[in-house]
Amino acid sequence: MAPRTRIFTAALVVIGDEILSGRTHDKNIAQVAAWLQVQGIRLREVRVVADDTPAIVEAVNTLRARNDYLFTTGGIGPTHDDITVDAISEAFGVPAVVHPEARAILEEYYTSRDSELTEARLRMARTPEGASLIPNRYTGAPGIRIDNVFIMAGVPSITAGMLDALTGTLEGGDPVLSATIGCWVGESEVADLLRDAEKAFESCQIGSYPFWAEGRTGANFVIRSVDPADLTACATMVSEGLTALGKEPVSDGI
Amino acid sequence: MAPRTRIFTAALVVIGDEILSGRTHDKNIAQVAAWLQVQGIRLREVRVVADDTPAIVEAVNTLRARNDYLFTTGGIGPTHDDITVDAISEAFGVPAVVHPEARAILEEYYTSRDSELTEARLRMARTPEGASLIPNRYTGAPGIRIDNVFIMAGVPSITAGMLDALTGTLEGGDPVLSATIGCWVGESEVADLLRDAEKAFESCQIGSYPFWAEGRTGANFVIRSVDPADLTACATMVSEGLTALGKEPVSDGI
Repeated sequence: MAPRTRIFTAALVVIGDEILSGRTHDKNIAQVAAWLQVQGIRLREVRVVADDTPAIVEAVNTLRARNDYLFTTGGIGPTHDDITVDAISEAFGVPAVVHPEARAILEEYYTSRDSELTEARLRMARTPEGASLIPNRYTGAPGIRIDNVFIMAGVPSITAGMLDALTGTLEGGDPVLSATIGCWVGESEVADLLRDAEKAFESCQIGSYPFWAEGRTGANFVIRSVDPADLTACATMVSEGLTALGKEPVSDGI
Repeated sequence: MAPRTRIFTAALVVIGDEILSGRTHDKNIAQVAAWLQVQGIRLREVRVVADDTPAIVEAVNTLRARNDYLFTTGGIGPTHDDITVDAISEAFGVPAVVHPEARAILEEYYTSRDSELTEARLRMARTPEGASLIPNRYTGAPGIRIDNVFIMAGVPSITAGMLDALTGTLEGGDPVLSATIGCWVGESEVADLLRDAEKAFESCQIGSYPFWAEGRTGANFVIRSVDPADLTACATMVSEGLTALGKEPVSDGI
């Protein structure tokens, strides 16, 4: 297989005091990470920052400069602690403005519910100047795109709707494929095997994830590659190596 | 109440390809965050980085310089992808060495299990030169402390044992207290109330966390402060404000 011409990378900034206080368990890192894998984009770094303008600006400006894409989650609701749009406007050096299309979406949403677009709700129609919207057919609330930055909600089900709208629209490389081999073995017993197998196939990376269950020690070995032939050959080498050590490899993991 | 003389801050670096690929859902951010709250230390930033030396070095050196404490999780096992000790040694500009006490702990551990300390397992006794150990009475495996950096395991149950050993040993400020008020209300309807309440009590921060359940819109409002009197007064203002709007506030949240 010809090597990929390039690797596409992304970063994620999770914005919210509630994650840093331990009150809310983040679900967006795993959700965005898994979605990016399918798009052929590699998630290279995640930062969790507080609802704090300088912290958001620093993270956004550092990470958008060194990745193809930057995603943010959190802080785009109607209340005083929702400062993401203002902070990202500051990061880009543009004003935050009411986006006419977002305003229309919200007006229709509240009118259809016998309610109205109050000043607080109108905050949700604000975007950095020059931004476009990420439609969301599931919950109505749009996300925001400016340059290579994608601003999404913090509530995981709403984030999911925005990711759905973006599926297939971003340029990515070959998707990363993976194979998992589980085994009832201490990972320290097979450290040499894993290192040798990774060395033998340049396109492959092997992660070793130990666990304890049923009173025994086990591990899953996850092999990742963009090359299907390398992946199969490397998985075979690991499986045969485990068998040679008197262990029983389990395809697809334990 | 007299204001605190200072605020103690911490950062966390979560190290591991498995988090960035979406394969493993991180549990250490919430665990470390909740533990720090009790120690009176504020978690200010989290970064998730790959098993990649330059990425670890950058995150560790940036965050240890600007926080009182830095914690890391992941990458201290026996396999080739466990590079945290080497990377943090590089960050400090010291060699990685076998720590005699860690070696003794591992020797006893494996000998008592009719096994032996292989070369791969000896990797787990390595620390940056000059480091001390974080004992772990639950699973044996020690963590590592060098300067203000605390190197912990990635497996959450082992991380828990290391945090337990550190409980009460780190200097912190007054613990952050919180009160939660739940209400079946759209957060946009009470945005003014929340902003006014936060302004009225300088020591308080209010987070607004919307949800949808039972076919209705609700939100929890979390008030945080180091001052118990402010906290109570601010919570009362929010509760009375909700009642004045014809809503029913629910103590301790929905």
